[in-house]
Amino acid sequence: MSDQTTVGVGMIGYAFMGRVHSQAWRSVGAFFDLPLAPRMAVLAGRSKEHTAAAAARLGWADTETDWREVVSRDDVQIVDICTPGDSHAEIAIAALAAGKHVICEKPLANSVAEAEAMVRAAASSSGKNMVAFNYRRVPAVALARRYVEEGRLGEIRHVRAQYLQDWIVDAEFPLVWRLQKDKAGSGSLGDIGAHIIDTAQFITGQNIVGVSALTETFVKERPLSPGSSETGPVTVDDAALFIGRLSGGAVASFEATRFATGRKNALRIELNGSLGSLAFDFEAMNELWVSEGGSGFKRILVTEPDHPYAAAWWPPGHGLGYEHTFTHEIKDFLEAIAQGDDPAPSFADGLRVQRVLAAVERSAADSSRFTVVEDV
Amino acid sequence: MSDQTTVGVGMIGYAFMGRVHSQAWRSVGAFFDLPLAPRMAVLAGRSKEHTAAAAARLGWADTETDWREVVSRDDVQIVDICTPGDSHAEIAIAALAAGKHVICEKPLANSVAEAEAMVRAAASSSGKNMVAFNYRRVPAVALARRYVEEGRLGEIRHVRAQYLQDWIVDAEFPLVWRLQKDKAGSGSLGDIGAHIIDTAQFITGQNIVGVSALTETFVKERPLSPGSSETGPVTVDDAALFIGRLSGGAVASFEATRFATGRKNALRIELNGSLGSLAFDFEAMNELWVSEGGSGFKRILVTEPDHPYAAAWWPPGHGLGYEHTFTHEIKDFLEAIAQGDDPAPSFADGLRVQRVLAAVERSAADSSRFTVVEDV
Amino acid sequence: MSDQTTVGVGMIGYAFMGRVHSQAWRSVGAFFDLPLAPRMAVLAGRSKEHTAAAAARLGWADTETDWREVVSRDDVQIVDICTPGDSHAEIAIAALAAGKHVICEKPLANSVAEAEAMVRAAASSSGKNMVAFNYRRVPAVALARRYVEEGRLGEIRHVRAQYLQDWIVDAEFPLVWRLQKDKAGSGSLGDIGAHIIDTAQFITGQNIVGVSALTETFVKERPLSPGSSETGPVTVDDAALFIGRLSGGAVASFEATRFATGRKNALRIELNGSLGSLAFDFEAMNELWVSEGGSGFKRILVTEPDHPYAAAWWPPGHGLGYEHTFTHEIKDFLEAIAQGDDPAPSFADGLRVQRVLAAVERSAADSSRFTVVEDV
Amino acid sequence: MSDQTTVGVGMIGYAFMGRVHSQAWRSVGAFFDLPLAPRMAVLAGRSKEHTAAAAARLGWADTETDWREVVSRDDVQIVDICTPGDSHAEIAIAALAAGKHVICEKPLANSVAEAEAMVRAAASSSGKNMVAFNYRRVPAVALARRYVEEGRLGEIRHVRAQYLQDWIVDAEFPLVWRLQKDKAGSGSLGDIGAHIIDTAQFITGQNIVGVSALTETFVKERPLSPGSSETGPVTVDDAALFIGRLSGGAVASFEATRFATGRKNALRIELNGSLGSLAFDFEAMNELWVSEGGSGFKRILVTEPDHPYAAAWWPPGHGLGYEHTFTHEIKDFLEAIAQGDDPAPSFADGLRVQRVLAAVERSAADSSRFTVVEDV
Repeated sequence: MSDQTTVGVGMIGYAFMGRVHSQAWRSVGAFFDLPLAPRMAVLAGRSKEHTAAAAARLGWADTETDWREVVSRDDVQIVDICTPGDSHAEIAIAALAAGKHVICEKPLANSVAEAEAMVRAAASSSGKNMVAFNYRRVPAVALARRYVEEGRLGEIRHVRAQYLQDWIVDAEFPLVWRLQKDKAGSGSLGDIGAHIIDTAQFITGQNIVGVSALTETFVKERPLSPGSSETGPVTVDDAALFIGRLSGGAVASFEATRFATGRKNALRIELNGSLGSLAFDFEAMNELWVSEGGSGFKRILVTEPDHPYAAAWWPPGHGLGYEHTFTHEIKDFLEAIAQGDDPAPSFADGLRVQRVLAAVERSAADSSRFTVVEDV
Repeated sequence: MSDQTTVGVGMIGYAFMGRVHSQAWRSVGAFFDLPLAPRMAVLAGRSKEHTAAAAARLGWADTETDWREVVSRDDVQIVDICTPGDSHAEIAIAALAAGKHVICEKPLANSVAEAEAMVRAAASSSGKNMVAFNYRRVPAVALARRYVEEGRLGEIRHVRAQYLQDWIVDAEFPLVWRLQKDKAGSGSLGDIGAHIIDTAQFITGQNIVGVSALTETFVKERPLSPGSSETGPVTVDDAALFIGRLSGGAVASFEATRFATGRKNALRIELNGSLGSLAFDFEAMNELWVSEGGSGFKRILVTEPDHPYAAAWWPPGHGLGYEHTFTHEIKDFLEAIAQGDDPAPSFADGLRVQRVLAAVERSAADSSRFTVVEDV
Repeated sequence: MSDQTTVGVGMIGYAFMGRVHSQAWRSVGAFFDLPLAPRMAVLAGRSKEHTAAAAARLGWADTETDWREVVSRDDVQIVDICTPGDSHAEIAIAALAAGKHVICEKPLANSVAEAEAMVRAAASSSGKNMVAFNYRRVPAVALARRYVEEGRLGEIRHVRAQYLQDWIVDAEFPLVWRLQKDKAGSGSLGDIGAHIIDTAQFITGQNIVGVSALTETFVKERPLSPGSSETGPVTVDDAALFIGRLSGGAVASFEATRFATGRKNALRIELNGSLGSLAFDFEAMNELWVSEGGSGFKRILVTEPDHPYAAAWWPPGHGLGYEHTFTHEIKDFLEAIAQGDDPAPSFADGLRVQRVLAAVERSAADSSRFTVVEDV
Repeated sequence: MSDQTTVGVGMIGYAFMGRVHSQAWRSVGAFFDLPLAPRMAVLAGRSKEHTAAAAARLGWADTETDWREVVSRDDVQIVDICTPGDSHAEIAIAALAAGKHVICEKPLANSVAEAEAMVRAAASSSGKNMVAFNYRRVPAVALARRYVEEGRLGEIRHVRAQYLQDWIVDAEFPLVWRLQKDKAGSGSLGDIGAHIIDTAQFITGQNIVGVSALTETFVKERPLSPGSSETGPVTVDDAALFIGRLSGGAVASFEATRFATGRKNALRIELNGSLGSLAFDFEAMNELWVSEGGSGFKRILVTEPDHPYAAAWWPPGHGLGYEHTFTHEIKDFLEAIAQGDDPAPSFADGLRVQRVLAAVERSAADSSRFTVVEDV
């Protein structure tokens, strides 16, 4: 390990995503033989005091209150963007212009135009780029991809994917920024729908080529703050449903909602191929269910040494958690940088998801008419 | 029981549906206190020899080779139609005209026009009418309906229903009548999609008011017979997917396919309401999963004395099977007749399903555009 | 079917077991090609009136109020004993002496001595004998046996079997006959423990050679009748636990209880072999879980045409219920009679179970000391 | 956080347990508000080179090649013992004598005598002591304890606990130290049986008062090393089964084996009480199944803010993994030290487990006779 090159990391934002990214940067080197040793150089946030406290707790050596300072620091080679979607484009483009490697939270941007600009910036930068669709790095999801890639399921005919949560079922839940279109871009669609779009495209190796969609907002007014009698309009979707077609001939069904009472983080996907099927539910993230040859579904505990990422961790049957998907992501990102490869999912993959989101919105606004996903 | 009136039953058809209906007629009296005692009077089929053999095996007292004879017999008060869909209308209308009570297999007919004619015939007959959507009589499904009816799930926001089978995944499976439009009307849509439409409407107590659909035929040519090198075109859908809206404000997703490798008879339905959720899969038909108040899903074994139909059978935990749904159906039919009530689901309910099927087909043919379900 | 010989059946008792046996006699011919056609000739019970009502409802042609009359009737070739255990020996021995074929409910008797006498009577009779351990006829259990027999699990090392119910958890539940030693012989041990002993021996093909046991009575006094303030002592076990060794080298763990709150009829068995494992729970009776080669457990829906008994019924995925285990039992019994084979499980198998029960009781009374199962 | 006192930690051993403990020490401060800030001061191992590499990778500031040096360092206040069981007593007693706080891996020792000496040393030390039964810190297990403690399950009648693994099913697996009595003390009994004993006692709040046991060694000779033709005797148990009684009146069944093909790390426990039941399986570690009032089992995803430990981590439905049980353990240990409380489980708890293990061995050696667990 003595011949490892150290790379400095600067992270922007320290809320939910910042916390889990920090844990990944802090832990990755203890479990994987990395070609590059990440150094948690600097954390950026608006409030000097809060950022300092977060840095102390999460293990960052220094802080900045302006993200521009992070992008221009010489001790930073990697910029990790954990802010809300409306600032992704500006930060990423600046970081890429400065030759930094950039990993950016999803959805890549709040519009197709922003995402396109980011992809263009990436094309002309020496820095590498990655969009943080972490669910690709669930070992069970990566194993699912392997099954499809090896042809064990045959020709894929069906995809049915759902992302079900329930955290805003209560009509008294306040009008947080995620429920406002100007800040969040969309509602369940961009927040969690984006994940199942990427996951479906990743596992199948196919693109979604067209969709027919409808969206709904069940609770149209909410308190401005908890307990407040003043209310404001919810301007994003509470739920988005769409059916569509994939480039390889499969038909597919998608649903994203935050109103599925009793479902907490049920990212579920089921594939049916001519030779076999598989099913996954993130609420039981260490399990992949596989049917081959038409027989029953086998519950595979994805913790065997020959399963993706698993050998780095514990013996069989000793499961991983949510955070490890980020550790895997960063490990793959560092390896790609060291090898000069393009990380996956790239900004281009993020743009592709963005285009599906846009097609969903267009279809929903046009009587659910089948709408082709635009592609360059 | 000595004061029971006996009613004569005449059944048309003795294939799969005829076998299971016979078992229900034969068994129902041993488990339920019936107001009417069914007498298995006569079985009709085209071949004298085969019909006689079937009658002997299944317990019918007499046989006919022309269904018209059944309809005109004095010892027949109930006509049970177990033929393919293309003969339903003619038989049912004749039976109703003769004042018989009619129970008819689903889908009610092969077209909306036929179904409308059947409903008209029913309106002017002294006979009662029922369409055999047997899955309403799964105790777990009936219990699900009870939960919704009692308001325990609150306002229903989501329905997601699938009917997944895999029996024609093999491209060498021959071109049976169910894969030909002139005989079967449609493919998976009418055969199994009809069941989830009725089940969703039954449990929610809401109608599907509009749909956006796509259909697909994965294997377009099949051998005319097993092993034959001569092939013919598959003229029905292999799979049908649609999203839609219900009269009470819920959004819904439906999928019917015979290409879900590894799924054998997975009629699955999940509902999310403002107060709770439920989930059901016919492959585990004795279980209903219910979440209340946002907490986890409880696996209810629907075999308790206070569960629908269960007290008639065995002690808790001693499950029922597929055939019992028909026994329950016939018990309810006999009770409705004796009480002068209209049985449910009625021909009108069957027509409603037919109209949804028609809307699905129109939408699929019109770029998946949102299509209103016509209602009189 | 015209060349079928008819055999007359006389059944003694018409409570829970009588009801389910009747359904089996009534149905078996409609689903299986039988070498013998059973005729439901006569039902015996103590009360003339109640027996007549039961016969009408369950489909028996005639009644008797003395079982001896049944045994001596010329139109009866098969005697089906559905009475409590304390009368099994007397009836069975008389029936066998009269040359009847006898099927007898389990446990075979209330003591080893009685069971031995029954086996002796069977040995000198021209009639065949069977003890009704119906769980052997669950398709999933029969498939489990096939897996072991074919060597797919390798050498069996572990058996863990439980039979969990909860119907007497309530201390106010009255002192029914099943809780009195003089009538029931033992408590959960003989009633449900007997089933898991037989099932384990059947699936493994091994005998239990020795046990170490403990029993417990949690509620020692109960009301004499529902709501009564008068109480009497519970004289049987509420729960029985034992570990032991099988003839093939496996170690095993057994538990029978009626105090497993929330478990309704959980007859569960898990086997671990050198090459694979299997698991079964009667609460999901259509499923067998199999692990081969150390990989995950596959959920097999035991409804495929090549699964035991399944071809006679419905298409794949259309499950069976509790009652069908009896239909299968009677089908196998009739076939054995017609072919001159010895039915299984025989009275000798029933005696073997009885000897294990006796060893359990001896061990429990002797500080749980390892106690060899006596064998002739 | 600026007023946190820093405590230095010295860890002995850096194999499997050392790796997972390191991750916990490294991560705990980022998620919990700790009264003491752990400093990863020094790692001890026999090989200077290997220890240095491990320290670099796992994040320890310094290394020692003699554990005695760790115990005597002034910058070490906590000693974390991650070595095999045969060195626990010597290290722990020395550390306690030096006034250090000690956390020691399980089983506490290889004999009751050693464990007793450790408890005595703890009693006369100013240092706190803890034995690392990490499964108490699975949120679902801690929630299970809460259910029992709050009386929601009523009086506990049944415990059935199993720890099932399969990693030595292959007879060619070599004779590692864990299969040699002089090094490991016992086989599956002490390694994994100890965990279910502690977990059962923890959740129920009851002690095991007596046992009846049998043990078995299925593969009696193994290669000395992988692929070697030279073999040596396996001198420990491959499997241990016992039944017993708890201090509160429950009966219990335990089984530990490494021959349960297809089970990877199935630490399973089920409790039945007079009011309710619960079930847990570590292979699905984020789930607790609870039945109340006799109704079905509810699958609780133990990730809600009011569940044990969960608020420190991620939103509901974002599960934890194996390693987090150690993070929780260390958090509780640090809190107890800061508050001057006795951590749980203490060395005394470890001794109690040891005495159960000893009773199991005595019973197995004495014809499975019921053997009282000795208690001082």
